[in-house]
Amino acid sequence: MLTHMDEKGRPRMVEVGEKEETKRVAVAKGTIQMEPETLNRIRQGKIAKGDVLAVAQMAGIMAAKKTSDLIPMCHNIFITGVDMDFIIDEQNNKIHIEAIVKTVGKTGVEMEALQAVSIAALTIYDMCKAIDKNMLISDIRLIKKTGGKSGTYIREGEEIDR
Amino acid sequence: MLTHMDEKGRPRMVEVGEKEETKRVAVAKGTIQMEPETLNRIRQGKIAKGDVLAVAQMAGIMAAKKTSDLIPMCHNIFITGVDMDFIIDEQNNKIHIEAIVKTVGKTGVEMEALQAVSIAALTIYDMCKAIDKNMLISDIRLIKKTGGKSGTYIREGEEIDR
Amino acid sequence: MLTHMDEKGRPRMVEVGEKEETKRVAVAKGTIQMEPETLNRIRQGKIAKGDVLAVAQMAGIMAAKKTSDLIPMCHNIFITGVDMDFIIDEQNNKIHIEAIVKTVGKTGVEMEALQAVSIAALTIYDMCKAIDKNMLISDIRLIKKTGGKSGTYIREGEEIDR
Amino acid sequence: MLTHMDEKGRPRMVEVGEKEETKRVAVAKGTIQMEPETLNRIRQGKIAKGDVLAVAQMAGIMAAKKTSDLIPMCHNIFITGVDMDFIIDEQNNKIHIEAIVKTVGKTGVEMEALQAVSIAALTIYDMCKAIDKNMLISDIRLIKKTGGKSGTYIREGEEIDR
Amino acid sequence: MLTHMDEKGRPRMVEVGEKEETKRVAVAKGTIQMEPETLNRIRQGKIAKGDVLAVAQMAGIMAAKKTSDLIPMCHNIFITGVDMDFIIDEQNNKIHIEAIVKTVGKTGVEMEALQAVSIAALTIYDMCKAIDKNMLISDIRLIKKTGGKSGTYIREGEEIDR
Amino acid sequence: MLTHMDEKGRPRMVEVGEKEETKRVAVAKGTIQMEPETLNRIRQGKIAKGDVLAVAQMAGIMAAKKTSDLIPMCHNIFITGVDMDFIIDEQNNKIHIEAIVKTVGKTGVEMEALQAVSIAALTIYDMCKAIDKNMLISDIRLIKKTGGKSGTYIREGEEIDR
Repeated sequence: MLTHMDEKGRPRMVEVGEKEETKRVAVAKGTIQMEPETLNRIRQGKIAKGDVLAVAQMAGIMAAKKTSDLIPMCHNIFITGVDMDFIIDEQNNKIHIEAIVKTVGKTGVEMEALQAVSIAALTIYDMCKAIDKNMLISDIRLIKKTGGKSGTYIREGEEIDR
Repeated sequence: MLTHMDEKGRPRMVEVGEKEETKRVAVAKGTIQMEPETLNRIRQGKIAKGDVLAVAQMAGIMAAKKTSDLIPMCHNIFITGVDMDFIIDEQNNKIHIEAIVKTVGKTGVEMEALQAVSIAALTIYDMCKAIDKNMLISDIRLIKKTGGKSGTYIREGEEIDR
Repeated sequence: MLTHMDEKGRPRMVEVGEKEETKRVAVAKGTIQMEPETLNRIRQGKIAKGDVLAVAQMAGIMAAKKTSDLIPMCHNIFITGVDMDFIIDEQNNKIHIEAIVKTVGKTGVEMEALQAVSIAALTIYDMCKAIDKNMLISDIRLIKKTGGKSGTYIREGEEIDR
Repeated sequence: MLTHMDEKGRPRMVEVGEKEETKRVAVAKGTIQMEPETLNRIRQGKIAKGDVLAVAQMAGIMAAKKTSDLIPMCHNIFITGVDMDFIIDEQNNKIHIEAIVKTVGKTGVEMEALQAVSIAALTIYDMCKAIDKNMLISDIRLIKKTGGKSGTYIREGEEIDR
Repeated sequence: MLTHMDEKGRPRMVEVGEKEETKRVAVAKGTIQMEPETLNRIRQGKIAKGDVLAVAQMAGIMAAKKTSDLIPMCHNIFITGVDMDFIIDEQNNKIHIEAIVKTVGKTGVEMEALQAVSIAALTIYDMCKAIDKNMLISDIRLIKKTGGKSGTYIREGEEIDR
Repeated sequence: MLTHMDEKGRPRMVEVGEKEETKRVAVAKGTIQMEPETLNRIRQGKIAKGDVLAVAQMAGIMAAKKTSDLIPMCHNIFITGVDMDFIIDEQNNKIHIEAIVKTVGKTGVEMEALQAVSIAALTIYDMCKAIDKNMLISDIRLIKKTGGKSGTYIREGEEIDR
């Protein structure tokens, strides 16, 4: 049985009251692929016409704070910090999105990191959809988590630099 | 310049007051890949231990209603209906997620459909992460949109059955 | 099958795009029972020490606006007006709560009226729980609805004065 | 004077900074009465056509997390866990709804438990209102609370099994 | 008596169902005063270190969409567009903030425009408070409104250029 | 560089995980100026026709709880208490608004206090705008903060009585 289901097969919010308050970090990543011309406009905009990725970063951070409002069985927790990064990959016409979320608490922040990446990607889509509806959001995944009873998780095959 | 940026390069909420109220539909899809054992538990749970996908569907629909709360420059609109579907793909260890969002209004519901798919995928991740942290969310994309001045868009290479 | 469930037995947001925009009204009622002393303080407070029922009314109206945020399959609609009333029933140590919600739209506002009554009752509970934890909220019900295809509903045995 | 009113008779958010962080539990209950046929459909749906009570449970848990957003003077707190249960009472054509909310903190979770029960009841109403508008929500009450300075409260005449 | 109070002296959400749907525009302004050095950093940041005003503009627009969530008796309406502008006034060490909100609907958007200006100002405060706690937010006011039964309002003594 | 901007010039949520949990208090003030007749109605209403300032106080307190939802880089924190006060200044046709917010935590509550004052002022505007559109909100400022590493701040030239 999944821990998020009770004995009647209905969703439950797992009790974490007995868990220890520890420092916890989660890192998530994802990508959004687009037409070369779209990527180009985002790159150039940074300098002169408005930084789409700043909007996406702000949306991702704000979304991380609302994770428990959207993911039904997620605990509402205090997030101590969020960092995001975007790497433009011209070769593959992609932007790589990364979110690092930290807390000191009784539950992890994996969902918060994944949520930040997802909403940042959707925000890029929204800002650019007038010129490119073919964008594709992929590879949203947890890269790493530390803290808590289950300890450290590192996704196989990922380079970890923080 | 992107329509979502003003002349100073800051994000703006595009004025749609002059647009016509038309019936608008958007279809989005995405996938979540997981361990065979995880997929198996989701499939079996449907019958006896709680339907993870019902939770995901509910989360997706609720998220569609909050799209404008998360995507910064999105209009807050009245959604007339949301349908979702999940197709279990045992061969590829994936669940295919689909959302169809409808409205009668001045702007489209592409973001609402993409949001529903994204949050449904994240909800599946959350419900199963205790047994499988390696899940991967991919191929979130707009399949089709109808209505509005720009007319019908169908993503190339997609089978459209509704 | 319930209209709010799809063919796979998962909750759906019923499509109302084809429905006509009509003026719609819903009236809901409920009661909260308490110790005579608690009721007395609420009555006296009105004059000198703060109007608990004004707080409850404000909470009820604000909650009506958020109905679709809480009731999963509810449509997010524009509410044109909300009136509430509280009748102190000293004989039975009760306060009768009433909410009248109006809209012009494609779906009814029954849930909004029931939500306003429920949250107003809970707010009274919250404001007074330091002196009375035995309060009891009962008889939350739809009294009347008008407008829409299904027409007028009046609950049997209820006096309708508006 | 009520503790939730200040000296000018206006609502205040009571300062709890000096209170101790303790484990706190609150149990609330309520009922929803309906036509036998409606109850029957809910019971049968569990197996084949969609579990209305799973939707209600999810809505109740999500609402518990938003209690401070709806109840004006409620503190926004971290909830460590929520369990809900529904008991079908065919003799009385009722469903008994129970919510157990836990936290480790400076204030109790009575309102959160009452909120979960109320919204779960309203969700059942919403899901079934197309076939039964006469449903009646009653007996929403606090059953028990533990933790905090005021200690344990048990409602008189209630059987407590947890 | 104020229209926003009912006959018992409790707040009410004024019924607007009979009002006509017209195009409505509201313009609001405000200022934030700060140390010259703070203003300087904001100005320079635009080019090299991050555009505080882009963050403020985004926050203002998002807040406009949530006006009815914060202002208790405000109607929840569909906003068709929001534009904001910031004018740096070096002589007075101020930033002038302007918001223009539009809708097609039954109620005006004055509160939405005032809300956008207020939250944009608070966001500037938040982003810079580590270096300057003495900032001062002033002169938040409605400049102009058009549309609706009460017609056009222009604040005396204001230059109107749009 | 501002602490709220990262090295790429995009907004970041500053990490506070290492900060100590201390008792923190913030006091903010602001004013709203209006026609003498409007001020008169608010004053008289207190007694007979509904207390506008009670509505404003409630709105301010509720807004304080949502600060992190509106101010993009603000941490979502547990507020232990909020007090507000309104002083009617007939000589200057103003209402002085004050908010005192307290917490025990890793970050201050300056923004929460400023938010409470701002939204209370906007609520007064909303409640009275049918009779007076010329109201002016000014002098929103931080008066005092205590707690945290940066210690006590008192705004120069302000009388502090709490």
